[in-house]
Amino acid sequence: MENQFLDWVAQTVRDHPSLRVGIGDDAAVLRWRPDSNIVVATDAITDQVDFRLDEVDPRLVGRKALAVNLSDLAAMAAEPMAALVTLILPKGGGANRSCGQLARDLILGMAPLAEQFDVAIAGGDTNTWDAPLAISVTVIGRTTQHGPLERSGAQIGDALLVTGSLGGSILRRQWNFEPRIDEALQLHADYKLHAAIDISDGLAIDASRLAAASGLGIGIELSSVPISDDAVELSQQTGRPPIEHALGDGEDFELLFTTGPNEATRLLQEQPLSTPITQIGHCLQQPGLWRLDGDAPPQPLETIGFQHVGDAD
Amino acid sequence: MENQFLDWVAQTVRDHPSLRVGIGDDAAVLRWRPDSNIVVATDAITDQVDFRLDEVDPRLVGRKALAVNLSDLAAMAAEPMAALVTLILPKGGGANRSCGQLARDLILGMAPLAEQFDVAIAGGDTNTWDAPLAISVTVIGRTTQHGPLERSGAQIGDALLVTGSLGGSILRRQWNFEPRIDEALQLHADYKLHAAIDISDGLAIDASRLAAASGLGIGIELSSVPISDDAVELSQQTGRPPIEHALGDGEDFELLFTTGPNEATRLLQEQPLSTPITQIGHCLQQPGLWRLDGDAPPQPLETIGFQHVGDAD
Repeated sequence: MENQFLDWVAQTVRDHPSLRVGIGDDAAVLRWRPDSNIVVATDAITDQVDFRLDEVDPRLVGRKALAVNLSDLAAMAAEPMAALVTLILPKGGGANRSCGQLARDLILGMAPLAEQFDVAIAGGDTNTWDAPLAISVTVIGRTTQHGPLERSGAQIGDALLVTGSLGGSILRRQWNFEPRIDEALQLHADYKLHAAIDISDGLAIDASRLAAASGLGIGIELSSVPISDDAVELSQQTGRPPIEHALGDGEDFELLFTTGPNEATRLLQEQPLSTPITQIGHCLQQPGLWRLDGDAPPQPLETIGFQHVGDAD
Repeated sequence: MENQFLDWVAQTVRDHPSLRVGIGDDAAVLRWRPDSNIVVATDAITDQVDFRLDEVDPRLVGRKALAVNLSDLAAMAAEPMAALVTLILPKGGGANRSCGQLARDLILGMAPLAEQFDVAIAGGDTNTWDAPLAISVTVIGRTTQHGPLERSGAQIGDALLVTGSLGGSILRRQWNFEPRIDEALQLHADYKLHAAIDISDGLAIDASRLAAASGLGIGIELSSVPISDDAVELSQQTGRPPIEHALGDGEDFELLFTTGPNEATRLLQEQPLSTPITQIGHCLQQPGLWRLDGDAPPQPLETIGFQHVGDAD
């Protein structure tokens, strides 16, 4: 449902002069001053959909609720400033904790990450009800002098690059990933990036979103995709090839971004981050997502990945 | 639970230099530039707690989810700029609507209010699950040249004033109240206000919150409290006196504010708004909430009102 619904919302609510980037990117960008923008993102995670409260330490859940939002700011190359935390708590508590203990553990899971990225926990809202746990976090950040890094800026011929390695995040990385804030700010300052998205729902689907936002196509050379050790380990459990996990698992929270071919060459040579950067494809004129295999003609690539539930409507 | 929990959060998360106003006011205020602040507030409403989805038009629910947040900005005398909307939707829909229709009606209920107050609906997050409807809205605003209007600025001897009339909002006003944005901006520009809060949980409890934040007490002359026609109508159903409804019902979303006695005299004479402003008491040295009755000594006044559920923990 989500994509169709967002299209509908974007058509229904009036375009607003203070919105530099509205619905359809990782975060919204508000014009504040000629030289500065506020960047805001919000993401909710819910019990039984994004985690199972009876199987995981609530501190990890709290950490993740903040981390996924910081990842959205990273994808815009925005500096985080503050977070608002809304807890909707089951009255009876959960994870063998009372409602109040649960709330405190969720916050205790966020606090170190907030400190690490110098994010003020500025407020929020606390509710209880006879239903499962939901956590909604909103983060507020600002663009640097280099402006926001949007999904829509990719150009035909751009190289498609990714930080880190992909797949199998369900084994552990979904709980302890580092939002790529510092990496995004450094890359955006030192290289002329064109577009970026964070990989939340899976390489294939997020690449196709970046392509659609930029009005072009993306081709991925599957043999170039950096596959994580976790994807290999998971493939031994699932019997599916590791590349499928790398393409579709999601929750990698790595940066997927594009830049011109010469800038990409320089960036790949310099490898300026402590995590590797890999070129995995490039931007094509033909819309859609394509599988590249050397000089063979591009073949359609299925956009596997986490589709938001409720797609039927 | 909420008050204790907020105290705990305020002690647990580090104080942050960019926070001018943090946890414990109607909204948080972030220092942005020497001459300007970002004001952010977030409030969630949930099925069976704040409304009953099977009894009310979802457009009214959507309107309310935005309106309660705008009321928080009004209480800070902030100009709204944008809203982020997180919908957590029951997979099967509700109110005789599919999940997608429900989502659209919620947004359709917000859109006119957003337009009225020139608020950009800048983005959000949409989730579905096997549980009831929850809506979390975050609003972003800015202070004017007069700065934020905080809860904590009341002074001993201040007059306590309120816009409009109170009580019985459950009959209809909870669904169609006008956030007092324009009123707050006008009053804050033309008079030297000291402190304000919006009446969300009830006059008595919200007055006691303003008093606590300002480190003083508040005395209310019950015979001065403006009682709404709805409170009178409701009292005929409940058998409770109208003043109890005015003190405790909540969801009036009127402004409760303080100013010095001379400024209050001028304000009450000028009556600058289209809605009446009434003095209902004043600020006292002795902490707590007090009932005033002419020259008789103040008597303790119970802080009736909507206590957030889950207080047991």
